[in-house]
Amino acid sequence: MKHYNQLAGQKIQRIEAICDGVFAVALTLLVLDVKVPIAAGIQSEQDLAIAFVGLMPKLSTYFLSFMTLGIFWTGHSVQFQYIEKSDRNLNWISLMYLFFVSTIPFTTAFLNEHIQFKLAIALYWLNIFLLGLILYINWSYAAKHHFLNLDPVEAVVVGRAIKRRIVIAQSLYAAGAILCAINNYLSIVVIICIQLNYAFALFGHHKKKKISLPHSEQVNTN
Amino acid sequence: MKHYNQLAGQKIQRIEAICDGVFAVALTLLVLDVKVPIAAGIQSEQDLAIAFVGLMPKLSTYFLSFMTLGIFWTGHSVQFQYIEKSDRNLNWISLMYLFFVSTIPFTTAFLNEHIQFKLAIALYWLNIFLLGLILYINWSYAAKHHFLNLDPVEAVVVGRAIKRRIVIAQSLYAAGAILCAINNYLSIVVIICIQLNYAFALFGHHKKKKISLPHSEQVNTN
Amino acid sequence: MKHYNQLAGQKIQRIEAICDGVFAVALTLLVLDVKVPIAAGIQSEQDLAIAFVGLMPKLSTYFLSFMTLGIFWTGHSVQFQYIEKSDRNLNWISLMYLFFVSTIPFTTAFLNEHIQFKLAIALYWLNIFLLGLILYINWSYAAKHHFLNLDPVEAVVVGRAIKRRIVIAQSLYAAGAILCAINNYLSIVVIICIQLNYAFALFGHHKKKKISLPHSEQVNTN
Amino acid sequence: MKHYNQLAGQKIQRIEAICDGVFAVALTLLVLDVKVPIAAGIQSEQDLAIAFVGLMPKLSTYFLSFMTLGIFWTGHSVQFQYIEKSDRNLNWISLMYLFFVSTIPFTTAFLNEHIQFKLAIALYWLNIFLLGLILYINWSYAAKHHFLNLDPVEAVVVGRAIKRRIVIAQSLYAAGAILCAINNYLSIVVIICIQLNYAFALFGHHKKKKISLPHSEQVNTN
Repeated sequence: MKHYNQLAGQKIQRIEAICDGVFAVALTLLVLDVKVPIAAGIQSEQDLAIAFVGLMPKLSTYFLSFMTLGIFWTGHSVQFQYIEKSDRNLNWISLMYLFFVSTIPFTTAFLNEHIQFKLAIALYWLNIFLLGLILYINWSYAAKHHFLNLDPVEAVVVGRAIKRRIVIAQSLYAAGAILCAINNYLSIVVIICIQLNYAFALFGHHKKKKISLPHSEQVNTN
Repeated sequence: MKHYNQLAGQKIQRIEAICDGVFAVALTLLVLDVKVPIAAGIQSEQDLAIAFVGLMPKLSTYFLSFMTLGIFWTGHSVQFQYIEKSDRNLNWISLMYLFFVSTIPFTTAFLNEHIQFKLAIALYWLNIFLLGLILYINWSYAAKHHFLNLDPVEAVVVGRAIKRRIVIAQSLYAAGAILCAINNYLSIVVIICIQLNYAFALFGHHKKKKISLPHSEQVNTN
Repeated sequence: MKHYNQLAGQKIQRIEAICDGVFAVALTLLVLDVKVPIAAGIQSEQDLAIAFVGLMPKLSTYFLSFMTLGIFWTGHSVQFQYIEKSDRNLNWISLMYLFFVSTIPFTTAFLNEHIQFKLAIALYWLNIFLLGLILYINWSYAAKHHFLNLDPVEAVVVGRAIKRRIVIAQSLYAAGAILCAINNYLSIVVIICIQLNYAFALFGHHKKKKISLPHSEQVNTN
Repeated sequence: MKHYNQLAGQKIQRIEAICDGVFAVALTLLVLDVKVPIAAGIQSEQDLAIAFVGLMPKLSTYFLSFMTLGIFWTGHSVQFQYIEKSDRNLNWISLMYLFFVSTIPFTTAFLNEHIQFKLAIALYWLNIFLLGLILYINWSYAAKHHFLNLDPVEAVVVGRAIKRRIVIAQSLYAAGAILCAINNYLSIVVIICIQLNYAFALFGHHKKKKISLPHSEQVNTN
């Protein structure tokens, strides 16, 4: 048994490694879409300043997508703190997750290029939604197949917190996306605010998420 | 002796690390080939929807190649669960494997651009075939040189399952590729179906692949 | 307790892994900005030599940015030698750090293209400044929340050395950047010299930074 | 003491991780330089076959560079099997090594574009030479500062083998590069042959390199 766990543990490390690799590449590729204004036509500091200000929308969506990837990297990473075994299905759930991670640079560039169209926001939202959905499936599958390093009581407590967090976040994203019915920029600003809140707990609600577990002081579910 | 095993173990970890790195970059680079339709000429939501639908063939081959890379990453990862030592030849077998991993974005882009020509399908198939071949050689070499963490009986059982899986999968891929004699799109659809089957066991045949080993409940050979 | 530390330790490894990944991609992407002179118009060895010499400014800023990334990778890596626990805030401090790592290829390309304008140097300096600032915050936060593997006395000694190093380096960078009031190239040459000094301790001042700690011979804070 | 070794060990792992990352990205980026022939102008299977054959020189230099990177990744990886401590200088030796790893895609593309000019071969050779030189310095420094996990007798034996290997390989590369005085293609073919020999020991000379060490059966110095 110890032997098998060791093997399975190795496998978890590989899933974590491919995951960290894909996220790292995606995080760094995003900026490639932000093109430096070419020298021709720039005559003065002021011209350059104007050209740089013109990059702001692109830099904003770049920052938005960096936050998105950061949030979902953290989400996946937190789940795998509690997952100690894996099988081929869990492996492929992570690979499908990485597929939608790798499409983020594409849906971001699509949003950048067509920010005035609702289809671009719908596509971006769909990408975020699918990442949330797979994260939810990942936990459910791992919990159902007893791949967790938690005793049953802990598993219920941690699982409830993880699932609630995904559902609330996705509801807020959906609400933000629907705002594009009024105005696309409003929609994007709201989604950025939701993400900043999740990353930095601006409105302090993350204190409620701290869970007391028997064998640890505090478990971070973010 | 323990000292040497430790060193050799480190080496295995390096092979796994470079492997995860190359796969991660290849997985994420694929999407760079899918260009966002440029804003000029897109006047309405409908124009954008049409342009997006026009990307579907590229997005399909992108998904196809992501599946391909996922399948071969999993295949390599599974073998290295059982490999605990390495020598320079095994090191170079993995590097050659990675060479053909790194050509997947190229053969995929080639397929995308020339999907109506049989040469493009032949080239893509050849890439998949070489990956399967090297995976087969990798296991054979490791088994022959006693680099496995399995006792002799287990090594035979696991090895047979791993090899059979490669042979069957490669036979199916070859059959799928030959279908391009009839129609190229048929060929691609069949290859995608084979891959979906291998990833998600749609037709349930993976149950037969589970092997009982003395010291573990179930060994996953996928 | 042991259980929780193990989990938290795993998390540190994930932060280190995503960090190494983003730095690795950024370090390698830099060179993509250095375009090979195209064959058309190159008739002789001499033409090619002239074209190659023409690449020197770009190769210099590329080397500059490689040094920058190397310095900040080392800085982050050194801090995490002493950090053994993490929470979500520390996680996001590292992700914000990686955001400004991923902008280095952009600010470098911006500097390359507009090297005669002060805005380009200001932007590049701002990027370096933000990296230093976040590094400072990272240590302060980890120390304040007792995430270090150091006893209180060591924590003060190591922390003072780490912080002093950041403050001195940033002061020098700021001074180098201000030199662009006189001449942009002077400013860049001075910044490169500061970096070479930090990397290779050309002027030998790193000996002063060696700290004696009770349980170790020498601790490297660079 | 154990505490410090543990920290230092972590640092080695970080150097290995950034190294694997940069190599992985460089290995995969190489292929980006091989552009798929565009569809316009390709009317038949034969046109495509001709266009594909036209890519052969690029694919060859791509393969050449993949081998180069593979050889130097293996060389670095082998050294770090024996290195268990690090200081800031060793850290920066590895970072400089990675700098010249990251220039390989550039010098390769330069060679591709200007294969008829000696400057292109000289530049490519210089890149290989600098990698070999830094590898030599890396071992010398680590051995001199007692960072190895070998006892003094082993350190001499392993060190001699590692250094001899670098010197012989670099002599062969230099000889291959000088052949460009006769013909550039001859030069490249000879360098590829040298590399194939080092990777796969085609001429069987690697048996001489096996060293008997007290505590291990055989040590691989390749």
